[in-house]
Amino acid sequence: MKKHILVVPGDGIGQEVTAVGKKVLEKIAEKFGHEFTYDEALIGHVAIEATGEPLPAETLEKMRASDAILFGAVGHIKYDNDPHAKVRPEQGLLKMRKELGLYANLRPIKLFDELLEASSIKPEILKGADILFFRELTGDVYFGKRERIEDGNTAYDTMIYSKYEVERIARKAFEAAMTRGKKLMSVDKANVLESSRLWRETVQAIAPEYPEVEVTHQFVDSAAMMLIKDPKQFDVVVTGNLFGDILTDEASQIAGSMGMLASASVGDSTGVYEPIHGSAHDIAGKGLANPMASVLSAALLLDISFGLKEEANVVINAVDQVLKAGFRTGDIATKDTPKDMILGTDAIGEEILN
Amino acid sequence: MKKHILVVPGDGIGQEVTAVGKKVLEKIAEKFGHEFTYDEALIGHVAIEATGEPLPAETLEKMRASDAILFGAVGHIKYDNDPHAKVRPEQGLLKMRKELGLYANLRPIKLFDELLEASSIKPEILKGADILFFRELTGDVYFGKRERIEDGNTAYDTMIYSKYEVERIARKAFEAAMTRGKKLMSVDKANVLESSRLWRETVQAIAPEYPEVEVTHQFVDSAAMMLIKDPKQFDVVVTGNLFGDILTDEASQIAGSMGMLASASVGDSTGVYEPIHGSAHDIAGKGLANPMASVLSAALLLDISFGLKEEANVVINAVDQVLKAGFRTGDIATKDTPKDMILGTDAIGEEILN
Ligand SMILES: CC(C)[C@H](C(=O)O)[C@@H](O)C(=O)O
Ligand SMILES: CC(C)[C@H](C(=O)O)[C@@H](O)C(=O)O
Repeated sequence: MKKHILVVPGDGIGQEVTAVGKKVLEKIAEKFGHEFTYDEALIGHVAIEATGEPLPAETLEKMRASDAILFGAVGHIKYDNDPHAKVRPEQGLLKMRKELGLYANLRPIKLFDELLEASSIKPEILKGADILFFRELTGDVYFGKRERIEDGNTAYDTMIYSKYEVERIARKAFEAAMTRGKKLMSVDKANVLESSRLWRETVQAIAPEYPEVEVTHQFVDSAAMMLIKDPKQFDVVVTGNLFGDILTDEASQIAGSMGMLASASVGDSTGVYEPIHGSAHDIAGKGLANPMASVLSAALLLDISFGLKEEANVVINAVDQVLKAGFRTGDIATKDTPKDMILGTDAIGEEILN
Repeated sequence: MKKHILVVPGDGIGQEVTAVGKKVLEKIAEKFGHEFTYDEALIGHVAIEATGEPLPAETLEKMRASDAILFGAVGHIKYDNDPHAKVRPEQGLLKMRKELGLYANLRPIKLFDELLEASSIKPEILKGADILFFRELTGDVYFGKRERIEDGNTAYDTMIYSKYEVERIARKAFEAAMTRGKKLMSVDKANVLESSRLWRETVQAIAPEYPEVEVTHQFVDSAAMMLIKDPKQFDVVVTGNLFGDILTDEASQIAGSMGMLASASVGDSTGVYEPIHGSAHDIAGKGLANPMASVLSAALLLDISFGLKEEANVVINAVDQVLKAGFRTGDIATKDTPKDMILGTDAIGEEILN
């Protein structure tokens, strides 16, 4: 298979972990006789520093020309505490999602058995939990009109959804549910929000097309509670951009660490594959970051964008073998992990590649 | 002390649990020689059934005339799956908050040692966790303009904050932090939302007035993750209405069960004291509900509205004694709880009163 992959490391640990993800793709190509070509592009803080733009036109062009994108992270502490910054790394991320029509963000939450002890949640609560989130990614309060009014003393954002936006993400979620446990939970705040009432009525209207899927509707506050109380009751979850952002970060604790979680953003054309963790500037450049989320993002890329299921499974198994062998990065080590089994980014990357 | 208390049970288990909360107040008055008078009023679904209005004028009048309000819950499944319902129980709750100026919602999250095992989170992660949330309660997307447009195919809500709203809740949170661990975390989504950037800059501007308080700012997604990963690092948290709704429900798992959590809503005049749990129609009328959140709400009422610290502590101790004696309701029982120690609402209420 011939494919062109764009690597976009972005900021902070995005650089280090994406390097490992890319090596895994190279290794797979070699092993299975595929011809993957690569290019690289800037986004986020590094792009602002180099060009003044969080998403330079050149990057967007390269993205459109790619078959899939291996993405790192964006963000920099410098902008976070400056509420007046006009240009921000995150604008690059949001613009990319919108421009490429990446409306469906898939976040699978699955715990490797070896990491049962790494979570703050009890093993018996976690064992067997396997959740697939569909987070809507190009609508909601992320893209509605926002402004300062009243001499800057008041600020608003607009939480907005149209029916077609809910329909297309709901269909993807229903279809995924059909291939899994046939349970779909739609999360909203329909007891208060009009956009949530539109969300709920749209999901309700589609449900009869999938009579085998058992659909439930939960308020976001209650869902946030249930995720920790009893994660095993979840199968597929579909929700809006903001609620999805919060719930998937929360759910990362079910998988032991954010450092283990990959995501796929797909829609109209090319797909973007990225860890759900951020740029983590506190550990950036130190070689400490867990690259497994990027490696598992590469697996999702092979699976979803290229349809290479066998190759994807080889990657997932490689991660599993490394965990079984007892190797850990700092974020997934427990007090019982021997010191010499705690490896840095590159070293654990080498173990995965072997 | 002479005080007038309005009891507003509302819907579902609100009825059963508030009855226990009220008995506790009566017992305290008797024991300490206070003169508490009581009245009762309707809200929510029961009010709609009786008067057509979720918050009848008579209820609002009685509320304004009270020194404090012991509140139950509102909500009914009948409206939840009907996105077109014009009148909803929740409107009564939101109108009450707005009309009474209850802008500060305090939600203390503290685990009774006896319930360490009842949580899905590991005991060693939980032990010692003690968080006080300040959720803003009369602004945000709960009260901004919302409507259907484009023939009903698009819906929006407005997430909106003004500086003075952020200032007054932030001040309350800073002041509480001064009496506790002197740590304040402000939660927002300032990397995306303009209302969050206003929130953050306002908290930053107030911080120098409280030089002893260590202030941090977290994005809501990250805060949702940290709450489960390491709840002990939190002291006081201040956040907006929507993020506070989600995070406090999630944090209920730190206390073992929603059935244990009380909240106080205060502002310009009278205060409202209520469990953070909802109307729970699935168990309503069965005598199974845990009344401890209502009992602990009564304790908060004594403490915050009446300044009766000693009386409040007597109530908290009574709950603690009942837990120490091994009594449980279903929601906080574990597999090791003997069957005959699992009591219903009234029976455990009697134990608390003894
Ligand atoms: C960086 C930020 C804008 C982004 C989001 O909120 O979508 C991130 O948290 C994510 O989940 O990808
Ligand atoms: C019932 C609902 C409107 C309410 C809210 O979202 O504020 C409830 O969840 C709460 O937390 O008091």
